[in-house]
Amino acid sequence: MVSAEAGPAGGSPILDKLDPFSSRQADRLPPDIGPSETALLVIDMVHDYLDPAGAMPLPDTAPVLAAARRLADAAHGSNVLLVWVRPGHFEHADGLFRKRIVHALEGTPGPRLHPSLPVLPTDRVLHKRRYSAFFATDLDLYLREHRIRRAVLAGVALNICVRATVHDAFFLGYDVWLAADACQATGRREHDSTLYDVQTHFGTVLTVADIEKAWR
Amino acid sequence: MVSAEAGPAGGSPILDKLDPFSSRQADRLPPDIGPSETALLVIDMVHDYLDPAGAMPLPDTAPVLAAARRLADAAHGSNVLLVWVRPGHFEHADGLFRKRIVHALEGTPGPRLHPSLPVLPTDRVLHKRRYSAFFATDLDLYLREHRIRRAVLAGVALNICVRATVHDAFFLGYDVWLAADACQATGRREHDSTLYDVQTHFGTVLTVADIEKAWR
Amino acid sequence: MVSAEAGPAGGSPILDKLDPFSSRQADRLPPDIGPSETALLVIDMVHDYLDPAGAMPLPDTAPVLAAARRLADAAHGSNVLLVWVRPGHFEHADGLFRKRIVHALEGTPGPRLHPSLPVLPTDRVLHKRRYSAFFATDLDLYLREHRIRRAVLAGVALNICVRATVHDAFFLGYDVWLAADACQATGRREHDSTLYDVQTHFGTVLTVADIEKAWR
Amino acid sequence: MVSAEAGPAGGSPILDKLDPFSSRQADRLPPDIGPSETALLVIDMVHDYLDPAGAMPLPDTAPVLAAARRLADAAHGSNVLLVWVRPGHFEHADGLFRKRIVHALEGTPGPRLHPSLPVLPTDRVLHKRRYSAFFATDLDLYLREHRIRRAVLAGVALNICVRATVHDAFFLGYDVWLAADACQATGRREHDSTLYDVQTHFGTVLTVADIEKAWR
Repeated sequence: MVSAEAGPAGGSPILDKLDPFSSRQADRLPPDIGPSETALLVIDMVHDYLDPAGAMPLPDTAPVLAAARRLADAAHGSNVLLVWVRPGHFEHADGLFRKRIVHALEGTPGPRLHPSLPVLPTDRVLHKRRYSAFFATDLDLYLREHRIRRAVLAGVALNICVRATVHDAFFLGYDVWLAADACQATGRREHDSTLYDVQTHFGTVLTVADIEKAWR
Repeated sequence: MVSAEAGPAGGSPILDKLDPFSSRQADRLPPDIGPSETALLVIDMVHDYLDPAGAMPLPDTAPVLAAARRLADAAHGSNVLLVWVRPGHFEHADGLFRKRIVHALEGTPGPRLHPSLPVLPTDRVLHKRRYSAFFATDLDLYLREHRIRRAVLAGVALNICVRATVHDAFFLGYDVWLAADACQATGRREHDSTLYDVQTHFGTVLTVADIEKAWR
Repeated sequence: MVSAEAGPAGGSPILDKLDPFSSRQADRLPPDIGPSETALLVIDMVHDYLDPAGAMPLPDTAPVLAAARRLADAAHGSNVLLVWVRPGHFEHADGLFRKRIVHALEGTPGPRLHPSLPVLPTDRVLHKRRYSAFFATDLDLYLREHRIRRAVLAGVALNICVRATVHDAFFLGYDVWLAADACQATGRREHDSTLYDVQTHFGTVLTVADIEKAWR
Repeated sequence: MVSAEAGPAGGSPILDKLDPFSSRQADRLPPDIGPSETALLVIDMVHDYLDPAGAMPLPDTAPVLAAARRLADAAHGSNVLLVWVRPGHFEHADGLFRKRIVHALEGTPGPRLHPSLPVLPTDRVLHKRRYSAFFATDLDLYLREHRIRRAVLAGVALNICVRATVHDAFFLGYDVWLAADACQATGRREHDSTLYDVQTHFGTVLTVADIEKAWR
């Protein structure tokens, strides 16, 4: 597997300049976990964030959509459990809409999965109401029931909903892989900063190609 | 109250360049919440992170210690509920120590609160085992019992444990204030990136001076 | 309001013989909470438990159905938030089916609400996967968002799913009312024993008539 | 292992008259789980509940104390993880004290473990604030970190705190054993009713002798 230090997707190294605090690394190898104990969590690949006509679109989302499709195909081919996580907000949840405009309302097209994604009937589609896919959902229960030990994360926005889900997956004891090129942040600094924090504190930053190779 | 757009502590503006996704702001005013419904959560101001002799020290921590003391004094003076959150790790929790060296072990001096902090017998000291102070603790229960509606966050590391606690406070419906100059990140980019994400998605970034004024 | 000591629905007194442990009662009055801060949680009134053709039917369910309808009508008339809780099990959840036969499978008619119930479009229908309606759901979040302080419980089976939900409602700080005659246990001893435990430790046992009167 | 149908500790059969609802049993064998994947949770064996001088004592507690000691010794001898759970209430938690008199206050002798219990330094002592040992604590996290799959329950009061902990253990996917003669309910009907509900819906009711034999 390509070392995370080399940087995901051929980009600049994630850990080229380690700060003093983060430099106290243990560098233990991650545990040996196969595809049957792995789940792919694809976060918030929905109309309102991916389509230019959506309520709160990210720019230029063709690459992240292509990478997520490739990763989902790899999961299907290796019997990795696949969970498509989607938002679905309620109008009364006013805290959510104090900062952000109203978006991804349950019952509207906003929180629907992008039609280009390869969603199979055997995949799980999970509805969430906060940024983290674990918050107030049965995701942890579902993963435990399937004896999952590793969560592989992809989706948008890397620095908001993907990151919040990484946090909880790590706290709950799952080994975390982040598919960097199948994620998109709201901006470049936030992209780099999230990869840095994940690689130093929460899990392992990889590319889709790395993960395809590991699952073969 | 000083506008967050002006930047905390006289620094550069947080939101000078809003990305397209984050620019869809609602800009609703935060709710009107007084000191009696407010809790100050001071995160991880302990030996191992603050003292140069600690296991994983941040550099140059005198300013963050001074600001946290000032904020705690203001809380005491305004009857704001004060919770000193400290880590306390168990050796068997190997996931935590896969990336980071062993630190803040329960029963050692590592996770003790810094002796310069004004801890009163009526304050709560809360032990946590993961980055978020809400994870696997009674913090939410405790705040509910005290009818708290706003959580004010300070401490270290801004981009790791403070941020993880901000996430959960926001998800649980607390209005979140972040005392930017009473926090310290592991590095400059992570400092700026965290303030940006908090101000665009999770709460309001302020200075200790702003908060003192609001509590008067 | 009729005193709980008089027994619900004109039956025998709940607390006629208090055991020594339970007799250490504080007997504080419940807080003053109106309909706008109250939610009615109707538990598991579904095909598999109520219809003689269901997988695991309770006997003689016409009275509990009639009482639940009457209570739901009262809730609608008083603007009490109404949550219809229904199960929906997954086949892989084998722990659930180690003791009980397979039932209430998601996607089959088993976990559908009984057609005689007055479900309005403005009511919430909540899917759960364990006995307690709070476990791995957004129920607590939903009640908090609506500033609910009291949960009124009705449904089946009183000693299993209703009781498990009473537990969590109480732990989370909601004041609990149990509508005894709108509940049905699996047997007589379990009915009496649950009312006793609820009245001594978790909340207040009332009748539908008591509750209608309180909501007027 | 002695069949649960024979009744724990030579008493009357638990399931002699199955109600129609509960009779739909699957009767699958529990999974094969050894002592290294088992935890013993001893609930609330503390001063205020066990000592005649306590705030809220159960009557005649010598037998339950003797049985709990014997079970703890067996756990120590078989390397079963042992968690001594104790309450520790806060005065502001007024919901708890609406029905029950003030008891087991944190910082007083009330919630201290009974001095006759064989607590070893390698055992965990876990503080809880509600009836269930899983509520607002790190118990689930602790059991996961130790790869525990079965929870064996003992302690007091069987129908309140032990039962509430059984609920959550079952919901979280742990296989549950209840050591009936190492538990004491507040009364006889509540004792019988709890064993019935546990055996039909949550786990397996056994005796200390059964469990000693299984751990050998």
